[in-house]
Amino acid sequence: MTERITAAIDTGVTTPLGFLAGAVAAGLRTRSGQDDLALLFSELRCVAAALFTSSAIAAAPVVLSRRNIADGKARAVVVNAGCANAYTGAEGYRDSEEMVRLAASQLRFAYSNAGSASKLRLADSDVLVASTGVTGHRLPIDKIRAAMPKIVLDRDGGGRFAHAIMTTDTVPKQAAAVFTSGGREYRVGGCAKGSGMIHPNLATMLAFLTSDAPVERAFLEETLRSAADASFHMITVDGDTSPNDTLLILANGAAGGATLREGVEGAAQFREAVVKVCVELAKAIARDAEGATKLIEIKVVGAKSLDDARTAARTVAGSSLVKSAVYGNDPNWGRVLAAVARSGAAVEEEATNLFWQGVCVFRRGRPLAYDEKALSAATKNDEVRIRVDLGLGRARAVAWGCDLTEEYVRINSEYTT
Amino acid sequence: MTERITAAIDTGVTTPLGFLAGAVAAGLRTRSGQDDLALLFSELRCVAAALFTSSAIAAAPVVLSRRNIADGKARAVVVNAGCANAYTGAEGYRDSEEMVRLAASQLRFAYSNAGSASKLRLADSDVLVASTGVTGHRLPIDKIRAAMPKIVLDRDGGGRFAHAIMTTDTVPKQAAAVFTSGGREYRVGGCAKGSGMIHPNLATMLAFLTSDAPVERAFLEETLRSAADASFHMITVDGDTSPNDTLLILANGAAGGATLREGVEGAAQFREAVVKVCVELAKAIARDAEGATKLIEIKVVGAKSLDDARTAARTVAGSSLVKSAVYGNDPNWGRVLAAVARSGAAVEEEATNLFWQGVCVFRRGRPLAYDEKALSAATKNDEVRIRVDLGLGRARAVAWGCDLTEEYVRINSEYTT
Repeated sequence: MTERITAAIDTGVTTPLGFLAGAVAAGLRTRSGQDDLALLFSELRCVAAALFTSSAIAAAPVVLSRRNIADGKARAVVVNAGCANAYTGAEGYRDSEEMVRLAASQLRFAYSNAGSASKLRLADSDVLVASTGVTGHRLPIDKIRAAMPKIVLDRDGGGRFAHAIMTTDTVPKQAAAVFTSGGREYRVGGCAKGSGMIHPNLATMLAFLTSDAPVERAFLEETLRSAADASFHMITVDGDTSPNDTLLILANGAAGGATLREGVEGAAQFREAVVKVCVELAKAIARDAEGATKLIEIKVVGAKSLDDARTAARTVAGSSLVKSAVYGNDPNWGRVLAAVARSGAAVEEEATNLFWQGVCVFRRGRPLAYDEKALSAATKNDEVRIRVDLGLGRARAVAWGCDLTEEYVRINSEYTT
Repeated sequence: MTERITAAIDTGVTTPLGFLAGAVAAGLRTRSGQDDLALLFSELRCVAAALFTSSAIAAAPVVLSRRNIADGKARAVVVNAGCANAYTGAEGYRDSEEMVRLAASQLRFAYSNAGSASKLRLADSDVLVASTGVTGHRLPIDKIRAAMPKIVLDRDGGGRFAHAIMTTDTVPKQAAAVFTSGGREYRVGGCAKGSGMIHPNLATMLAFLTSDAPVERAFLEETLRSAADASFHMITVDGDTSPNDTLLILANGAAGGATLREGVEGAAQFREAVVKVCVELAKAIARDAEGATKLIEIKVVGAKSLDDARTAARTVAGSSLVKSAVYGNDPNWGRVLAAVARSGAAVEEEATNLFWQGVCVFRRGRPLAYDEKALSAATKNDEVRIRVDLGLGRARAVAWGCDLTEEYVRINSEYTT
């Protein structure tokens, strides 16, 4: 069985063996003094897999990372907050290349300093890159050049790394899981930043996962995809998508043992651990969305197909009206039904049941009487659960969202000016 | 040429000849005293066409109106605000049937009273019905029964009708256009209610159009569809869709002349007039959206196809981030580009140009320097125009939306409780 790691000190990207991380304040943010340049490094070369933005215009760091991960290998990730380096054309791409070169140089230098006998062989193409922040502005590459040498890599650096990549996040988001296979213990760790523009298909979200398991490339890719489908693709904050979205996983095999691939012992546990970390990070993102005060969990059961269940759950989670109602402790379940009915999923009024915070408010096409005051009081909770039983099949899915608040509007109307 | 009618007194559904309307306060709203039951009647039987909600669960009045308009004929419309009669099952359907029966009885009675020599022959199925308001509650049919006889039909009753159908609208929405063909003058009038949940595909929107032109059924249907595609389907407030959405047009031929059909003299002018009225009503809805302070006009040009142009324009108009930025007078054009790039339309960064309030901020893949303070000041306007040139073709489209404000959240978090 997979277990969640609860140790508070280091529950993130440096939880698995052989990973080091660090960060520094490079002055890329408007409010300076906070870390905004972060580096993740593995002592062993990793098998790597990633999912990037579905936007037709990807930011420069995404274009470069896609290229650098094409061989399925990577060893380091350099990330900055404060500037997304998106919509910056050819110059922007060259800036991302320079950022990768600076990170690789720093790693070669730092690793030698760390007393390793053998000289570090690290190609620039083994470094992946991600950026987040305001779009349409050039990367302050001089500040990055000046700050990079100040990054100190640490085996407990995951927390600092998670802090450094935050934008309007109010808390860092980290998770880890551990599993045993063939007498060995393996770890999966991760961190993420979210906050605005979070939507199915990786809206402005960066998430980095690590593992010390040895994993075959195809199996790693498939595991990441299916984990994303059940986690990051099931959260929505405001329906927008950024050009920078990146989810990646590095597996370095530092814990030893035979390579995990589809069907072998340990493979299912590995997948379960990755899903667990992804779901935990995804929920943390939804909960900490800009201005949000509540996490909303939408469970759709009885759907005709998995696609239907997911579409219906996501549509409800993304409805501005449902989000506003939850914020106002208003059990306005008609808005849930309206969202389900327009989602494209197969829906039949007479077959549908709807539960709001555990109370059945609509059964087989009919509204039920309920205590409005009591249900409103039950909605005054930092988690609101809505369950829709479509009564048409056996497929089910869960989506997570957040309430829509005046604060969301305030944050997003004051971002650049 | 079509001309907009500017006479203020009666610019709506009773502008065309032979239409009467009226309304009464039936006590269906929480705040009583305001008209909430409205009736529209034509002295001549009309050719009728309609578009209804795309939701998989339509409200009872929609189900009944679909049935009653199946023969392409209608003569009256009864509408109530305060209760949507949605998600109310078989009882809800019977309530809508009863509302139609009550309206038909009242019309037969009132028309005889009006001194007509011939007894009015009006089948129940000649009456269409629409409801708007909160979902999941039964229609207070007793109040409707008591109030219906108090409705006085008036040749200048369009304004009162437009007022009565409002929910959170702050102003009634009416428009009219006139055109001449074959020496005759024809009129098209209309009114609408919008406010929340307005989105492409007729979200909680009711719109009623009338005309005194004689129109062939197929041509009327095609005209309404194409006019909706260029107007109501191009506005978005919050991405939600209601089960009650209804757009309908009644043409009674009271102005005489030959029947308008595709290709005949006057057909193009008729279509132009219908589009004009629809666009005016659609813009009025976007401008008056819940909590909105600004109308946003998104023009997409240079698209590969009309579908691409419309999809891109609507996606920008619907982006919460763009809407929040406009509210904050923040020319955060990267969010526009992000929305275009995720819309599904063909987009190439290097071919794209972007204008914000007339200022080019992005040209062929590169951000341009601009005076941020001046552009922010220019955004402090009750109309904000954004233009995206995709540089890939010749198709173009315009969408309208509104800013997202704290007030929107406030309104929608306090709706039922």
